[in-house]
Amino acid sequence: MRSKIISIGDEILIGQIVNTNAAYLGDKLFSAGIPVEKTTVICDEENALLAELDDSLSNYDVTIITGGLGPTHDDITKPVIVKYFGDELVTDEAVLNHVKKIFSSRNIKMPEINTRQALVPRNSEVIHNESGTAPGIWIEKNGRIVIALPGVPYEMKSMIENVVLQKLKLFFKDRLNVIVKQKTLLTTGLGESTLNERLGEIKEIIEDGKLAFLPSAEGVRLRINVTAENESDAKLKINFIESRIRNKAGDFVYGINEEKLEEITGKILRDRHKTLSLAESCTGGELSSRIVSVAGCSDYYTGGVCSYSNNQKINLLGVKSETLERFGAVSEETAIEMAEGVRKLMGTDYSLSTTGVAGPSGGSSEKPVGLVWIGFSSMEKTFAVKFFFGERRDIVIRRAVMRALEILRRELLGIELNFY
Amino acid sequence: MRSKIISIGDEILIGQIVNTNAAYLGDKLFSAGIPVEKTTVICDEENALLAELDDSLSNYDVTIITGGLGPTHDDITKPVIVKYFGDELVTDEAVLNHVKKIFSSRNIKMPEINTRQALVPRNSEVIHNESGTAPGIWIEKNGRIVIALPGVPYEMKSMIENVVLQKLKLFFKDRLNVIVKQKTLLTTGLGESTLNERLGEIKEIIEDGKLAFLPSAEGVRLRINVTAENESDAKLKINFIESRIRNKAGDFVYGINEEKLEEITGKILRDRHKTLSLAESCTGGELSSRIVSVAGCSDYYTGGVCSYSNNQKINLLGVKSETLERFGAVSEETAIEMAEGVRKLMGTDYSLSTTGVAGPSGGSSEKPVGLVWIGFSSMEKTFAVKFFFGERRDIVIRRAVMRALEILRRELLGIELNFY
Repeated sequence: MRSKIISIGDEILIGQIVNTNAAYLGDKLFSAGIPVEKTTVICDEENALLAELDDSLSNYDVTIITGGLGPTHDDITKPVIVKYFGDELVTDEAVLNHVKKIFSSRNIKMPEINTRQALVPRNSEVIHNESGTAPGIWIEKNGRIVIALPGVPYEMKSMIENVVLQKLKLFFKDRLNVIVKQKTLLTTGLGESTLNERLGEIKEIIEDGKLAFLPSAEGVRLRINVTAENESDAKLKINFIESRIRNKAGDFVYGINEEKLEEITGKILRDRHKTLSLAESCTGGELSSRIVSVAGCSDYYTGGVCSYSNNQKINLLGVKSETLERFGAVSEETAIEMAEGVRKLMGTDYSLSTTGVAGPSGGSSEKPVGLVWIGFSSMEKTFAVKFFFGERRDIVIRRAVMRALEILRRELLGIELNFY
Repeated sequence: MRSKIISIGDEILIGQIVNTNAAYLGDKLFSAGIPVEKTTVICDEENALLAELDDSLSNYDVTIITGGLGPTHDDITKPVIVKYFGDELVTDEAVLNHVKKIFSSRNIKMPEINTRQALVPRNSEVIHNESGTAPGIWIEKNGRIVIALPGVPYEMKSMIENVVLQKLKLFFKDRLNVIVKQKTLLTTGLGESTLNERLGEIKEIIEDGKLAFLPSAEGVRLRINVTAENESDAKLKINFIESRIRNKAGDFVYGINEEKLEEITGKILRDRHKTLSLAESCTGGELSSRIVSVAGCSDYYTGGVCSYSNNQKINLLGVKSETLERFGAVSEETAIEMAEGVRKLMGTDYSLSTTGVAGPSGGSSEKPVGLVWIGFSSMEKTFAVKFFFGERRDIVIRRAVMRALEILRRELLGIELNFY
């Protein structure tokens, strides 16, 4: 089973809007066992859509077209569909009444042009559009399905969830006997290639399924995909692959799927009734804002100081001026005094600090752009770790935030600090 | 002139990530006069890419492929390209040195697999990847261009802006004889429909060109597009439309194109040798991190306090405990005392404060989720303004940050505070 998405619209091609419809449909169809193998965006020209329909009917079980269903001259989906299938457009009275009702409920006189919304191909089924005026269209030919839906995201989504997925499951009930499952393991602290090397030969980890490496400035996500004949087989397969990966990647796996490192550390702090404070220099509030992005963080987060000048480091955090003079603001000693200072100032169990050269200027041969010291302090110990995060200001900040959270996680869980 | 984008990656097809690369490229190529007429996303399978290359070489002047350039087993772009063009992969010494340098600058031993990054098709030009290890590839055949770039957005973007666009302009200089110009006016403080109403009949503003409304949580961007036979005609057209819009949207236009409100306010502060400090509660460091995202902000930003608990508001910022008891943490009085407190604590010319109910819990009928007070303080005056920013935590925080910066801009420029 394979599917294809055709999005119609110049506004997507020229980058005026991002194609979030395709991402939504990709997710829904994957979970339904009809994975999208191709997505295409075309302009509103007859020949472009005719060529895509040709490709669809030859190669894909299901094709979903979004957009181009409105009543104006540049809405080509319905005319091109009837041309392609040798069909004709006829007025659907139920749709016409629905369109009229929508206008009257908004107290607007319906423009004449909107009667065109009720035109549908004679040999098609109408998919009711609860929240808009453009009906969806369902066409079957030689066991393959073509579905046209409006491009307005909330209209399209409600039609998919209320009608389309059920209809597809029913239509393909003999073939949709395969379960598709995925799970993503989140890692940080290892580069893509170092992680790859650690995992060794991928074929030995995953004989039956797929493993994708998804790197970003925050770490590498490992996505496992499997298919199986039933739910429990799929789960077994995933668990087997997951345990092999965890055996090799070990503590570098910090979470799964959509989890965030700030949620994971926050949960541990809350469960243990512990509190956290922050002293940020080079990360400038980004670490604090990540922690505050988690609802309910006030249970464990008391606050932070963003000490962007030396004066604030001295006055607020109690960093010694001798330390700043002798070792500089970006140093192990300053990071340690910042972490200790803010923990005492705010009376928390733990604290983190960051001080570095985020760039683009301010670097020297001894302290280049990208150098960051991250400090940690608790009742038991205080230390700082040195990192080099490259030359881009935004990336330096994002990486420093992730490493600070990862240091916190490792300290909370008693895992050795170990970064590559 | 027409172009096509091929994005490679299962993670896009199954909706795990949204294809923002395509939107970015669509925008850049449109402005360069080589509009994208088709975007396609395919999985990492040889046959899929071979078929797309066939279509590209027959129908499009320029094709840009993103993704699949890494060193792991699922990176197929380079092997498929050499197969399609009957070419072979050879090691490029300059790329190899660059890759080695990147690893050594990060103090990491280079995994052997990364030598593969230096393999490029013999009959291609290398596009240097300043910020990553995967080089770009430029291939010409029969007057058509195929370009392969990494899928990591910031690497891809810097290669497009620093190399690819110039090379395309040079290569197609005889055919790129229509100038396409765009300019974006940035507004904040007005909703899309209110702004639309204020502008009146769009046809009267823009007779010859296109105007797009691009709304987000930060405000509405107005993008003007014109085409002309030469640079000066295009500029004249844009200026004419811009002045008509500014006449009607007035002070709500805070900047143009890629400018950020934090850059605009930062520039004013630097020019006037003034300083700023922050006291954040509900925005939790996000305002500080926006200000710190601007390189060189240490010229005017001394730092901030993120006082997420009442204790910190009292101890650090000097908010009176009577104020907190009588009016609550989310109140005009607290916002004012926070702003005044941090300005005195840090000895700055100006300060901003935020305190609100970001949600999802913590709201009441009197102080619902989305209620935010934003405070401003200078030597001359201190005040706070009340806003309602809806129910989504992330949106409440983003809107509060934008409004705080906009209050600062208006106060610095002596513009009346006026929000809708």
